[in-house]
Amino acid sequence: MYLDHAATTPLSAPALAALTTELSRSGNPSSLHGSGRRARRVVEDARETLARAAGAHASEVIFTSGGTEADNLAVKGLFWARSDADARRTRILCSAVEHPAVQDAVEWLERHEGADVIWLPVTEEGIVRLDVLEQELDAGADRIALVTVMWANNEVGALQPVADITALAARHGIPVHSDAVQAFGSVPVSFADSGLATMAVSGHKIGGPVGVGALLVGRAVKLTPVQHGGGQERDIRSGTLDTAGIAAFAAAAEGAVAHLPAESQRLVDLRDQLIAGVGRVVPEAVLRGPRVDRLPGNAHFTFPGCEGDSLLFLLDMAGVESSTGSACTAGVPRPSHVLLAMGLSETEARGAQRFSLGHTSTPEDVDALVAALPEAYERARKAGMSGQASSIQTAGTGFS
Amino acid sequence: MYLDHAATTPLSAPALAALTTELSRSGNPSSLHGSGRRARRVVEDARETLARAAGAHASEVIFTSGGTEADNLAVKGLFWARSDADARRTRILCSAVEHPAVQDAVEWLERHEGADVIWLPVTEEGIVRLDVLEQELDAGADRIALVTVMWANNEVGALQPVADITALAARHGIPVHSDAVQAFGSVPVSFADSGLATMAVSGHKIGGPVGVGALLVGRAVKLTPVQHGGGQERDIRSGTLDTAGIAAFAAAAEGAVAHLPAESQRLVDLRDQLIAGVGRVVPEAVLRGPRVDRLPGNAHFTFPGCEGDSLLFLLDMAGVESSTGSACTAGVPRPSHVLLAMGLSETEARGAQRFSLGHTSTPEDVDALVAALPEAYERARKAGMSGQASSIQTAGTGFS
Repeated sequence: MYLDHAATTPLSAPALAALTTELSRSGNPSSLHGSGRRARRVVEDARETLARAAGAHASEVIFTSGGTEADNLAVKGLFWARSDADARRTRILCSAVEHPAVQDAVEWLERHEGADVIWLPVTEEGIVRLDVLEQELDAGADRIALVTVMWANNEVGALQPVADITALAARHGIPVHSDAVQAFGSVPVSFADSGLATMAVSGHKIGGPVGVGALLVGRAVKLTPVQHGGGQERDIRSGTLDTAGIAAFAAAAEGAVAHLPAESQRLVDLRDQLIAGVGRVVPEAVLRGPRVDRLPGNAHFTFPGCEGDSLLFLLDMAGVESSTGSACTAGVPRPSHVLLAMGLSETEARGAQRFSLGHTSTPEDVDALVAALPEAYERARKAGMSGQASSIQTAGTGFS
Repeated sequence: MYLDHAATTPLSAPALAALTTELSRSGNPSSLHGSGRRARRVVEDARETLARAAGAHASEVIFTSGGTEADNLAVKGLFWARSDADARRTRILCSAVEHPAVQDAVEWLERHEGADVIWLPVTEEGIVRLDVLEQELDAGADRIALVTVMWANNEVGALQPVADITALAARHGIPVHSDAVQAFGSVPVSFADSGLATMAVSGHKIGGPVGVGALLVGRAVKLTPVQHGGGQERDIRSGTLDTAGIAAFAAAAEGAVAHLPAESQRLVDLRDQLIAGVGRVVPEAVLRGPRVDRLPGNAHFTFPGCEGDSLLFLLDMAGVESSTGSACTAGVPRPSHVLLAMGLSETEARGAQRFSLGHTSTPEDVDALVAALPEAYERARKAGMSGQASSIQTAGTGFS
């Protein structure tokens, strides 16, 4: 029972078909001969398809190796371009609940490239405080390089008021980036209507393959490249274009967006059934994130008195796969920066568990969780906060 | 008839098998549950396999989205780490014949990050001048951040004296990066024996998929990350690991290295047959690059009195796919920086054509080229240097 679709979701049927077709072919889209031109046509068709799905123009699509690269390109690229054009513009306004692909890129710019960063606080539901954003914009507009606020939070599912944010920033002509990796394909997303300068999307969160994503870049937006080389993608992102991955990504996006109205309603129903079921069997569990402005497939709880990792492993032993939803590197569990920004204590934050639904989810998945949870929670609580989880070696991070 | 394997080569059978197996599975290798741990095992097995194939230790493998990213990470990562540790170290010694993934990264560091660059000249065969390297090392060792020289040139196939280069640099404790994208799988490459600090390899040049590569990083080497995020790959390269691509890349590498002795001899024979055939039908053609220290599958000529692009298109119309081997962006043909560095005039350089052989190449491919070449050359020469090619819109670059 896989309840971790926000980390990665299985390939969709159209994506698998596109991938399978392309894998039997060859050709570098930058080559000028017949094989190259054929591959180029596949890439350009996919660019059109992805653009349609994201409410963008094909010329605004820059293919990348995934959401992380797209976020890095946006944040660093905008920072460098804007501060190079005007040396006073070194400030970044960044929400306190960003994915590490944005947060760590911003922190590196602060540490290494002279950025000064203002972390925008969020409400207790995880939604960025527009009043603070407005104050900061009014106070220092000519010092601001960019604003970056994700479209939907990957841990607690909070949908951010992107249109309001871009409207405020537009008054001062300041570009806004949004990490839409979790939002795209799950809620209606239109780059054209958003007012964003740049927007990051990823393949493997919507039924496409891992290793491909895109940054949408408005036509008037100047970006300094992060990855240099052969000059592909309008010189903004060099590197051989992954024809197969790009074709599959576009097919997945087209499918996800076409099915979005029906599928999001199906997931909301399933998600609400999950929330009700968890509340029934573990009344102490606290739902985190907003009730309404929330990703359809996201349910996030804190479970008092236990470590999220313990609960994760005990549920996994019962056949239910979930996530703590927070970064943990090399076996050192850290409380989620998202939950801390929402005002939770470290103790509360350590009991976090994210259940995320996707295109293969069924009512049986939810039933299995609700059935397994009481015993898993009981055992996790007995193990307590003593750190049973920390004795388990983990590799990499549980974050997505 | 595909004679452009240096641009990209079809998937090998083991790579396709590994890819197909993985595509039916899911799981993020950073997730802690069963699906995640299964994916993690696949990645770690692939890491061991790739390390064995490259003469490295598994802990030295950092997976990337390809050769371009690996080169960028090495050049920028070494530059930042070395200049941060000692502000005097801002100099980069870089060969004049690097792939754009290195060259453009170095030029950006010069333009944007305060690097001073010394371009190491090459012989008329395209081999880096060790005497100049030695002089530069002796003259300014404490100002040098890194040396970067590719293992094998992508245009003219010249194999560089990597061991001599690292031995010279080691006297001064200076790290050396090498772009081994064209060499790995084609000639014996051992990271352990090379003395290199970092070495870039790519999947799709050796029968693996596009969109995956690796940087080998010596255990004592400090690198500043270029792509920040979830902390994957020892915090050196963040982004969700592409389990399927990585498994297929490792399978391709294992196969390529296992077959290397026999396959490289087969390609040398085929390549020499090609060189002899071209010389027979177009005696004016001049072979460029070294006769001996050369990639097995590479043959590169300049054809006097014609544009490389014209020749490419005329050969393509006759069913033979080749490359000019030089960068041309947005339809503006530029003479190859590699050929200019080897002392050719712009006029000579504009008649360049690269034929590159790989695992699917047969004697029939060579025969087809030799049969098609006389007429194509005659027609290209009649079109002359007037720029027939420039009327043909090209997308992206013909470089690889």
